[in-house]
Amino acid sequence: MPHYTAPLRDMRFVMHDVLDVMSEYRAMPAHAGLDVETIDAVLEEGARFASQVILPLNVVGDRDGCTLDGDGVVTPPKGFKEAYWQFVEAGWPSLSCATEHGGQGLPVLLNNRVYEMFNAASQAWLMYFGLTHSAYECLLAHGSDEQKKIYLSKLVSGHWSGTMCLTESHCGTDLGLLKTRAEPNSDGSHSLTGTKIFISSGEHDLSENIIHLVLARLPDAPVGSRGISLFIVPKFIPDADGNTGERNAIKAGSIEHKMGIHGNATCVMNLDSARGWLVGEPHKGLAAMFVMMNSARLGVGMQSLGLAEVAYQNARDYARDRLQGRSPRGPQQPDKPADPIVVHPDVRRMLLTCKAYTEGGRALVCFTTLQMDRELSHPDPAVRAQSEALLTFLIPVVKAFITDNAFETNNLALQVFGGHGFITEWGMEQFVRDARINMIYEGTNGIQALDLLGRKVLHDQGAKLRMFGSLVREFVQAQAGKPEMAEFINPLAKLGEDVAKITAEIATKAAVDPDEVGAASVPYLRIIGHLVYAWLWARMARAALDQLHTGDPFYKSKLATARFYYARLLPETAMHLQTIRSGAAALMTIDAEGF
Amino acid sequence: MPHYTAPLRDMRFVMHDVLDVMSEYRAMPAHAGLDVETIDAVLEEGARFASQVILPLNVVGDRDGCTLDGDGVVTPPKGFKEAYWQFVEAGWPSLSCATEHGGQGLPVLLNNRVYEMFNAASQAWLMYFGLTHSAYECLLAHGSDEQKKIYLSKLVSGHWSGTMCLTESHCGTDLGLLKTRAEPNSDGSHSLTGTKIFISSGEHDLSENIIHLVLARLPDAPVGSRGISLFIVPKFIPDADGNTGERNAIKAGSIEHKMGIHGNATCVMNLDSARGWLVGEPHKGLAAMFVMMNSARLGVGMQSLGLAEVAYQNARDYARDRLQGRSPRGPQQPDKPADPIVVHPDVRRMLLTCKAYTEGGRALVCFTTLQMDRELSHPDPAVRAQSEALLTFLIPVVKAFITDNAFETNNLALQVFGGHGFITEWGMEQFVRDARINMIYEGTNGIQALDLLGRKVLHDQGAKLRMFGSLVREFVQAQAGKPEMAEFINPLAKLGEDVAKITAEIATKAAVDPDEVGAASVPYLRIIGHLVYAWLWARMARAALDQLHTGDPFYKSKLATARFYYARLLPETAMHLQTIRSGAAALMTIDAEGF
Repeated sequence: MPHYTAPLRDMRFVMHDVLDVMSEYRAMPAHAGLDVETIDAVLEEGARFASQVILPLNVVGDRDGCTLDGDGVVTPPKGFKEAYWQFVEAGWPSLSCATEHGGQGLPVLLNNRVYEMFNAASQAWLMYFGLTHSAYECLLAHGSDEQKKIYLSKLVSGHWSGTMCLTESHCGTDLGLLKTRAEPNSDGSHSLTGTKIFISSGEHDLSENIIHLVLARLPDAPVGSRGISLFIVPKFIPDADGNTGERNAIKAGSIEHKMGIHGNATCVMNLDSARGWLVGEPHKGLAAMFVMMNSARLGVGMQSLGLAEVAYQNARDYARDRLQGRSPRGPQQPDKPADPIVVHPDVRRMLLTCKAYTEGGRALVCFTTLQMDRELSHPDPAVRAQSEALLTFLIPVVKAFITDNAFETNNLALQVFGGHGFITEWGMEQFVRDARINMIYEGTNGIQALDLLGRKVLHDQGAKLRMFGSLVREFVQAQAGKPEMAEFINPLAKLGEDVAKITAEIATKAAVDPDEVGAASVPYLRIIGHLVYAWLWARMARAALDQLHTGDPFYKSKLATARFYYARLLPETAMHLQTIRSGAAALMTIDAEGF
Repeated sequence: MPHYTAPLRDMRFVMHDVLDVMSEYRAMPAHAGLDVETIDAVLEEGARFASQVILPLNVVGDRDGCTLDGDGVVTPPKGFKEAYWQFVEAGWPSLSCATEHGGQGLPVLLNNRVYEMFNAASQAWLMYFGLTHSAYECLLAHGSDEQKKIYLSKLVSGHWSGTMCLTESHCGTDLGLLKTRAEPNSDGSHSLTGTKIFISSGEHDLSENIIHLVLARLPDAPVGSRGISLFIVPKFIPDADGNTGERNAIKAGSIEHKMGIHGNATCVMNLDSARGWLVGEPHKGLAAMFVMMNSARLGVGMQSLGLAEVAYQNARDYARDRLQGRSPRGPQQPDKPADPIVVHPDVRRMLLTCKAYTEGGRALVCFTTLQMDRELSHPDPAVRAQSEALLTFLIPVVKAFITDNAFETNNLALQVFGGHGFITEWGMEQFVRDARINMIYEGTNGIQALDLLGRKVLHDQGAKLRMFGSLVREFVQAQAGKPEMAEFINPLAKLGEDVAKITAEIATKAAVDPDEVGAASVPYLRIIGHLVYAWLWARMARAALDQLHTGDPFYKSKLATARFYYARLLPETAMHLQTIRSGAAALMTIDAEGF
């Protein structure tokens, strides 16, 4: 069975040596009193909980899956419920929620580190709580006072959990096509009828109540995406004091058999005049859902980051133990029948790819969640606005770049095990199967790429891109003339220029041919992802260089990984610049029958 | 459930329009009488058998898997045995075997097309016969006359099947470490004792007997890979007339639970003084096994080619049917609620990647198996020698480049389905799980890359590479000055020069630092794979251009796919040229503890 040790050292490096988060938090009144000891205590207890309580459930959950009986009762894998209540009783759900709703008011960045660890231990298990925090954010932003009073504290504590009910069998990406209908009742509630599919944690008995956030159409709704409204549809209907009452008519019709995350119940949910309550304005459901979507997309990045880290750790340790063949330089351990496979350059290529992508991903989500903390808590509105813009720009990168890289990481980690990687017993193949969904749900990675290039870059004439670009430029200028940084700064500056140029080229072509955006989007997201990682790896190299004198091997390893990233992974951009320049014609000239 | 229609049109295009196989076969006495009608009849009957008999078993096999009872009896999925006997009775096993052993003497290329179709229908099912043909080739080359008499005709007919028993729990890649022992008996046989793992089709009741080819050590064996001998260890011991007798002491101890190919029984095989007969010389077992390895590696490429084709077909048809969103150019089917997703440039990018890799792979294996036919049957020894050299050069490309590309193809095909791709019911996720093993077994793709760069290129100072390069150059020279071919010929010629240059650079560096070979090997194989595909796609473009006047849309589509390949896939080489030039240092400076 795979093991997992939370990478606390690396988390602390990114938080303190690279991002200097304590200075950041001192500038935010809500976090000014936060000390390193509190952060450390949370990280250490999170690490213990992940390894000791959650990790043992992961293999069991995959093997046994969930069952559904004839009455629509879903039974998750053995042990899942007990762990859920330990999680609730330890206060993990409330970590970063607002204190006025019972939360602990800690930074999003810290909460996110805990989520990384819990995801590494078991994505399928954590998903039962998964969207609860997103539901909390959505109701906090768009719920009525009464809705907040009934729902928020229970969602904050984790006594109740949340879901997102969007997809229907005929529509996922194009929600404008959805058919679930909401008819007004005389008491102000609505009756919802329809069928939703792919509802993660749609039905289970882990929490005391499940709060479904459901998209549906009112009778007078305009067609398409401007006619969608958002409703709270609780499994058990609460009274005004939050006591749960009668069972609502939203039930699991079936559970899906799927490639991975077997431990999580992916449900078809039937709404049969289920009672629901409108959230926010009629027909403005998609916008209200958007709050939830950003945090859900960050959460998916986190799922993959966790899976990448745990897979990497196991591949690394296997490569150190497994004796097979000899180093091309001659025997390294002549007393043994063979050398450990970590001596082989190509095994190192695989491991370092895993390491560089995983640590780069961690730096990215730490930076991104720091922007969330600034957006929520910084006193200066200009800082808040800047962080919001950066966040908007980075979310599709977090979602798509991390999940794509993690899938590669999980596959490389499996490959390090050779045939043993394909065998269930070793646990490596489960990581690949679990990681595969992250490239699809909460908006496929293709949709993320369109969101980045179309909405986030071209739509505001590159303003957000330039804002990010100015961070890169500042760093490049600050490090210019320092010979030890030239190997990072020169290619970083060059890539910054390439990005500006290719963006302008795409904009020019897209003005003539709208297909150019979709033709460029996926390689463009890869290039932007590398610009972000190259900037973060240069910052990490700087921080490591500053500490090399300590003799701590951590910094030597970090610097070597930065060099590997620049030598081996960054060159992917050369390919994408070429493919983007080839334009839409290579994709569009073939007709549908010609495939 | 996925559907499959054998791509006969494309097979005929490659065989006749591109490779002109009928002229080739007319030059070989063994095939001079072959006519197109015979080829067509085999292809059409193979297509029918694949879709009607094998395909329905694939999903069942994945769902139900195999079971092992306490007596070591393995039960494959329902229907597998019945289909196996239809396969035997129809004569499929003997298609390309020598007529003197009961074979039909048809070309390897044709047999291989049938295998492509059967693999597309069910890799797990075909694997029960899978290595039988390799065992036949091995005994044909290295068996004694008595062994040939007893075993060959039964392997040819498929009444008996074959396995390869190499891997042990502590060694797979490094077979020099293997421990299974063979003690001589007084009657000339040996008693073999040991445990082999990962034995595909190691035990089952589909065939009447299972002929295990087992690697083991004789008592006087030198240590390492020069002390390994090859033995025939039959499940039931035959008499001199080939009648099966007593059950031999080689039994399945357990079957593996694994990521994919659930329908095939992957066994731990215990040999407990099992009787075996030496094949070839003592201690020369690895060399004897090599004959088998080449055809096994070709077979693995074929498994992935089949999976890529079937996945592509289903993704293509889904993309034509699934309505979601509108074309960026505006509604293409305004009478419908949305356009089919095939209108979106990024969906086309995914489909065309699948198509270009799959059709490129088919061209490669057709060319490769044509070399096999020339090597076996051409009257001119110079032609045979050239074909053998080309084959040696191409086998690692067939194995690694096709299986890597197919894994990407299977993942992209899944992605086209969005969330539905992750659900078992649609069958797309099974293709990904099944395809994953092909990058590992019969030598991991990393080992293939070392084989290509180390053994096939550097070891003979680039002689085989230059031989292939001269084919590229001949084509470039023949097409030079034809403006319609410039878009293919110019980048192809450029890549040929790049390959010559980077090979020389690696050779120079490797002379100083032996780690440079392993540091370059995987990206080098990708570059060579693209050189081969670029040459084949240019040849296909030429053949399509020559037929464009017919107005047949097949040729228009083929030309568009060639252009897509050059625009979108070939640029990958730019990345690999950069990463190779970064050298071994980026991989080797970090120490084992630094990971």
